[in-house]
Amino acid sequence: MYLCGMAQILDGKAVSSFFKQQIATEVKEMVASGHRAPHLVAILVGSDGGSKTYVGAKEKACVEVGFAGTILHFDESISEEELLKEVHRINLDSSIDGLIVQLPLPKHINENKITQAILPEKDVDGFHDINMGKLTKGDYSGYISATPLGITMLLKYYHIETSGKHAVVIGRSNIVGRPMSILLSDSSETGNATVTLCHSRTQNLKELVAQADIVIAAIGKPGFVTGDMIKPGAIVIDVGTTRIDDSSKKAGWRLAGDVDFTSSELKSSFITPVPGGVGPMTITGLLFNTLKSRKRQIA
Amino acid sequence: MYLCGMAQILDGKAVSSFFKQQIATEVKEMVASGHRAPHLVAILVGSDGGSKTYVGAKEKACVEVGFAGTILHFDESISEEELLKEVHRINLDSSIDGLIVQLPLPKHINENKITQAILPEKDVDGFHDINMGKLTKGDYSGYISATPLGITMLLKYYHIETSGKHAVVIGRSNIVGRPMSILLSDSSETGNATVTLCHSRTQNLKELVAQADIVIAAIGKPGFVTGDMIKPGAIVIDVGTTRIDDSSKKAGWRLAGDVDFTSSELKSSFITPVPGGVGPMTITGLLFNTLKSRKRQIA
Repeated sequence: MYLCGMAQILDGKAVSSFFKQQIATEVKEMVASGHRAPHLVAILVGSDGGSKTYVGAKEKACVEVGFAGTILHFDESISEEELLKEVHRINLDSSIDGLIVQLPLPKHINENKITQAILPEKDVDGFHDINMGKLTKGDYSGYISATPLGITMLLKYYHIETSGKHAVVIGRSNIVGRPMSILLSDSSETGNATVTLCHSRTQNLKELVAQADIVIAAIGKPGFVTGDMIKPGAIVIDVGTTRIDDSSKKAGWRLAGDVDFTSSELKSSFITPVPGGVGPMTITGLLFNTLKSRKRQIA
Repeated sequence: MYLCGMAQILDGKAVSSFFKQQIATEVKEMVASGHRAPHLVAILVGSDGGSKTYVGAKEKACVEVGFAGTILHFDESISEEELLKEVHRINLDSSIDGLIVQLPLPKHINENKITQAILPEKDVDGFHDINMGKLTKGDYSGYISATPLGITMLLKYYHIETSGKHAVVIGRSNIVGRPMSILLSDSSETGNATVTLCHSRTQNLKELVAQADIVIAAIGKPGFVTGDMIKPGAIVIDVGTTRIDDSSKKAGWRLAGDVDFTSSELKSSFITPVPGGVGPMTITGLLFNTLKSRKRQIA
């Protein structure tokens, strides 16, 4: 039986540093043996503050591990056709290994059309139908989208056993909840869990969360999961990153997770903080995918 | 509250006839307006009795609705390369709308390689990564694999509400359990259920099944789900089709479902029999996909 106390923090920042060091070492060896370093291109359209921050953090991470990182910043007036042309140009450019398009895009651009135009081999965000299909089938030769991938890396790092556990995933987005639910129930190293996928239509959410050995909260509702909801000793992964006003912060806002940390920390065995939990692991997942793409070209 | 009694039988045979009549009408109109009828090709390799039966039933169904149906039967000595050539030839043949390859294939042939070689537009079994990826993302422009599709058609026919219900899917195969779990939890007409996916590593299966408003059994273990396991009034869908010896039958065997029908019928509100439940709906799903492919070419 689990004795309530204080959970171990799943330190995404530290684990991310650990993996980034490994990636940096591989890049150094790659360059030393005469190959060019991996190159990630991020397309940013418009001037949304959040998007700028995310893309900036990804570029910074590229530099840290020795990748080339390029941000292509377009005005929000760019047409779908022009953007598609950029994607095709990058698809054909053999000096680029990964291409991500920061979402959301302006309303006059069909996001799915852009996402599907990216060559699956360069789709390091794992949003292309082919990569999503492979993930669904348990074929890991493609790219797993960065957040679920980052979470599995975190689970592996802390030797958290998922097999036979009951995982409750809250949120069915194509980027997080859905692929996470698939990965956890697959027959992989961080899989073999019994997975319940909950969402806005779920009626008995509290009852279900109370049964969970592992809770993954990915709905974007600050503080939605509270300590009284979770089973003593549960593992709690918080994917939420909602900006909420906070006048005590220099920026005037702070990131809030989907989990009420204070109450949940007392009941869980492992918990991710926000910030410093899943966020850094997402970027590490992206770096991992970009390195994979580069290594594939060399092989 | 549900009062125990006798469940309503979800009559896959009758519902299949209903949908086949609709398809036949569409085909007649298609032909009357000068277009050719849909054409489904099935590749059969070797002489497995089960495979022959399944392919035969599919061809018979094609004839019933006015499709052209062709079985290409190869000796089990056919090489992977030769089989790939056949697939490519059919991909290029504009007089063929759908291609299915009956599984399993002989061991010297990589099944995934063959499945992925089929043009996604002709992959009416919905096994191609692109079709699986679309399904995962809730994009129904591709093909949903025939058994899950057939089950959703059955649910629709009987106006069975899935939204907000707790569905427990037993079995995580790429052909049935996995896509079914995705479809039920998606935001579609026969979705919006809270879905728990169980499998061989699930530890508390009985507790979970006891919570289910909808049970989908797809594990291939005859009589695995018994009446004492299910919640009164549950909807029970039996995907199992295991051949078991039965000397009272002319063929010497009979099909056995994953559900113990006698005990489950007394506790459930709706239940599919085996045979005559999901089986005929699977074939109807395949016909539906083939018609969809043909209509797309005409449009």
